[in-house]
Amino acid sequence: MDIVQIAKDAREAGNLLQLASPEQKSLALKSIKQVLSQHKQEILDANAKDMELALKEVEAGRLSSSLYKRLDINGKNGEKFETMIKGIDEVDLLQDPTGEITLARKLDDKLSLYRVRCPVGVILVIFEARPEVVVNIACLAIKSGNAAILKGGKEASNSNHVLAKLIKQALTNVSEECLANNRFPHEFPRNAVQLVDKREEIHDLLQLDKYIDLAIPRGSNSLVKSVQNNTRIPVLGHADGLCSIYLDESCDLEKAIHVVVDAKTDYPAACNSVETLLVHSSILESKFPFVAKALLSMNVLLHLDSASKAALKNDIQSYSNLIVDAKDEDYDHEFLGLEIAVKVVSSIDEAISHINEHGSKHTDAIITESESNAEFFMRKVDAAGVYWNASTRFADGFRYGFGAEVGVSTNKTHARGPVGLEGLTIYKYKLYGNGQGASDFGLGSEKKQYKHEDIKL
Amino acid sequence: MDIVQIAKDAREAGNLLQLASPEQKSLALKSIKQVLSQHKQEILDANAKDMELALKEVEAGRLSSSLYKRLDINGKNGEKFETMIKGIDEVDLLQDPTGEITLARKLDDKLSLYRVRCPVGVILVIFEARPEVVVNIACLAIKSGNAAILKGGKEASNSNHVLAKLIKQALTNVSEECLANNRFPHEFPRNAVQLVDKREEIHDLLQLDKYIDLAIPRGSNSLVKSVQNNTRIPVLGHADGLCSIYLDESCDLEKAIHVVVDAKTDYPAACNSVETLLVHSSILESKFPFVAKALLSMNVLLHLDSASKAALKNDIQSYSNLIVDAKDEDYDHEFLGLEIAVKVVSSIDEAISHINEHGSKHTDAIITESESNAEFFMRKVDAAGVYWNASTRFADGFRYGFGAEVGVSTNKTHARGPVGLEGLTIYKYKLYGNGQGASDFGLGSEKKQYKHEDIKL
Repeated sequence: MDIVQIAKDAREAGNLLQLASPEQKSLALKSIKQVLSQHKQEILDANAKDMELALKEVEAGRLSSSLYKRLDINGKNGEKFETMIKGIDEVDLLQDPTGEITLARKLDDKLSLYRVRCPVGVILVIFEARPEVVVNIACLAIKSGNAAILKGGKEASNSNHVLAKLIKQALTNVSEECLANNRFPHEFPRNAVQLVDKREEIHDLLQLDKYIDLAIPRGSNSLVKSVQNNTRIPVLGHADGLCSIYLDESCDLEKAIHVVVDAKTDYPAACNSVETLLVHSSILESKFPFVAKALLSMNVLLHLDSASKAALKNDIQSYSNLIVDAKDEDYDHEFLGLEIAVKVVSSIDEAISHINEHGSKHTDAIITESESNAEFFMRKVDAAGVYWNASTRFADGFRYGFGAEVGVSTNKTHARGPVGLEGLTIYKYKLYGNGQGASDFGLGSEKKQYKHEDIKL
Repeated sequence: MDIVQIAKDAREAGNLLQLASPEQKSLALKSIKQVLSQHKQEILDANAKDMELALKEVEAGRLSSSLYKRLDINGKNGEKFETMIKGIDEVDLLQDPTGEITLARKLDDKLSLYRVRCPVGVILVIFEARPEVVVNIACLAIKSGNAAILKGGKEASNSNHVLAKLIKQALTNVSEECLANNRFPHEFPRNAVQLVDKREEIHDLLQLDKYIDLAIPRGSNSLVKSVQNNTRIPVLGHADGLCSIYLDESCDLEKAIHVVVDAKTDYPAACNSVETLLVHSSILESKFPFVAKALLSMNVLLHLDSASKAALKNDIQSYSNLIVDAKDEDYDHEFLGLEIAVKVVSSIDEAISHINEHGSKHTDAIITESESNAEFFMRKVDAAGVYWNASTRFADGFRYGFGAEVGVSTNKTHARGPVGLEGLTIYKYKLYGNGQGASDFGLGSEKKQYKHEDIKL
């Protein structure tokens, strides 16, 4: 299909979704759930084809086995499929993020200004591997009132196609139901969710800023940068994370050990895992060795600078296979595994400077018993998440209580940190007048003055 | 000076500004006011040089006289200079946009999450001509806690340089005062506002997304597009506006005349002036001729489609110099003068489709006595401002009561419509813990459950 037509259809669907009532959006999600459940076997068959092709790639050494595992849409005893279906209900139950009034001001009698939360419009989501993302993003887009164009990984092509086809069928059902039912004054768009699957199509779509409002690449840093470099469309970067934890002079040892071990070992491949440990020099001999040994006992490889290595002199022998000298580039590296770079700093300022220079503005934590140091750190560290005595692993939409997340943004504008439904919305200003012109207001006795009074809601 | 060093200095200043108290920021604005007032003659002398050089350009036909006028920083009897100085006080009096808590949630006992409004960081503002913009943007940046790099037009080079030099002197004074005064725990950055003036430097700065968080081009559409095409930095587009007004079937004639005439003639060169008038076919013979004649009597040139031209058949003779046939491209054109394109539509849907296809998402209005049509229009038109029975000219930060504006954004993300101090802020998530790890939570009896309770503020 013509790529411009897909984008135009998405824009038209987005415009219609601006009118969709919460009830209509809920019907759409329920319809998706029903159609996917009814066609489970068709989905599994398509997925089996993808798995079969992928297995050959794994055997040929062209695909990692972890990626292969992520392709599986059914899981053990169908658990993954059930989770996917349950996820539709969960999004359905979330509060509608649109319609909220975030500013209400009387400019004059019979001239009232409201700022109202509304969908962004059309989002383009580029993701890799896991086919269930099609369903997840489709639901988030519809719930937030956005049309979505999805581009999945080629490994999941068969699964993605069947899922997109079934979602379209579900939306067509709702559309017809709404047309046949007087309760709904407005049509529901059949094209709210569309799939493209050729890599070249992405390049073309990225030029269509007239029709697409927001691009969300979910994947590697290089994917995010490549999208940013090739479009005028705003990009919500779901980048990986280079998170740091700073052990302050007055840190509590027990908290330090628990938080650092959790942040490193709970799920090392996650973007919110810690990659750099900064240690105040005053606790190098006293507390640091205990933290280091807790990590070593969990099989974490330590990249140590000379000062931290010296502090571990008594233990180097026993853990020689888990201790290496840190290189400069280790402090800019996401290990995404059981490895961590350690650096000794002589002050909280040095720790903050290091994080602001080397971190990825994702999530950084301080372990300290000093409230003033904690507040100083939390204000001056430039990251989406700044934590006091808590693991960086809490940076997650579900843990924050957002119910669902589009991803974690390391952007400095629009939406930052775990992005839920609210991050897919913007606002418009509605002005309710009675025929006024701006020239009615101004200086001079014959002119009106602005009242600028807040309207109580 | 080295452009990377300027960007690094800006980042460092931005990091320090994250700590600045409202009192410190107020001191900085007062210091700027004082230093600029004391050095008025130096500013006027530099401005006179710019004016002299520009006059030669005007005489040689290379510069417009309107641009020449905008260069003048003093104005008649020094009015413009006084307005500039007064503007500093006005920004000083605005509410500090940072520190506001927009979400507070108890994840568990002693694990509290807060979303706190904070400065974006470093902004790059590219503007043309008027030198007082240096002062205006400097104040908005400081008040919102951002470091700013400014690039002005080359015509105002001498004026801009003196203003930037004096602002730096003012900030240095505050910095020293803060260092000498125990009340202020944190330093105030001297490099909060920096000026660059070579066109090539912009290209280099646009590559420095590591140090610059937001680019704000204020000027022509081509400037905005060129910035968008050459950077990974998010761009807040202060684009021009293609605003439309739709006269609905049930419009009130008096309101229609007043609003349309105001929107077209109050200040035709402004981005919030109306450029396209859409007329429902049912009022073509009854109400439209009165609206058209009101515009014609104000010397507005009408670009008429065949249907609207036919409706004016009795008047074409008398206004032959003000009536031309509309071409397709007129509906995509910003006249920015006393001209308007007129198109007849057969339904509100056609009007909305036309606006969503041809408008610039700035501000669009409907004139109608039907509340349901107004609400339908306001929801489905995709623009920063959607107005009912009010002139598009109200789209302005001062009129909205924001006190000051950085510009009007036609973006779909981050900030939309007139952008005040709030548009220069983002948020960070602060998590206050007691040593918890994410692995403490989960399924199973030994694991904790998230409480996700709202915290009352």
